[in-house]
Amino acid sequence: MLIIPTQIAERLATGELIAAIAQELESNEVLMLAWMNKQALLNTIETRRATYWSRSRNSLWIKGESSGNFQEVSEISYDCDGDAILLKVKQSGSACHTGEKSCFHNEVALS
Amino acid sequence: MLIIPTQIAERLATGELIAAIAQELESNEVLMLAWMNKQALLNTIETRRATYWSRSRNSLWIKGESSGNFQEVSEISYDCDGDAILLKVKQSGSACHTGEKSCFHNEVALS
Repeated sequence: MLIIPTQIAERLATGELIAAIAQELESNEVLMLAWMNKQALLNTIETRRATYWSRSRNSLWIKGESSGNFQEVSEISYDCDGDAILLKVKQSGSACHTGEKSCFHNEVALS
Repeated sequence: MLIIPTQIAERLATGELIAAIAQELESNEVLMLAWMNKQALLNTIETRRATYWSRSRNSLWIKGESSGNFQEVSEISYDCDGDAILLKVKQSGSACHTGEKSCFHNEVALS
């Protein structure tokens, strides 16, 4: 039986999406942030492959399904107010569709 | 002059909030996820102290203002679709209001 923590389940039941951070298991590098609905989270727990909800395509999105750059999920934790989860993953290839390893490859200039 | 990248600025101009991940500079531990509007991001860039938008209180929230657990921001990057930013921070005390270092201290059981 798959168990979604109550706090998360209640949010998802309202149709709200939760934020999902993917962090590389070995390096601790933050690779990307995407979104999950209930089905995406259930699929992720069940298959151990990160599955998100694509807000632009309005559909489930198995990360790597088209690129081959799957994310194998080792650990999942969730935060104290239940609106975000953290996935520790083994990333095949690069996480970003641009070919960069991480989607966070653009810096904001600090004065 | 403070510069917000165009992609981020366009989202914020619509009233959409962006997700902000705080990651500890030295350990790379992910500490928390919160939300920012334009003013929160501008304050963060200007003061180098992480400032968020509290969705529950509907107000600006200088992290640490009441607890003393400020986040000194060393680097900011943003992701390829401009809906999330990553802050590298030096965390005073603990990030979580529960006293845990990170807000992500609850695990989801994987079968």
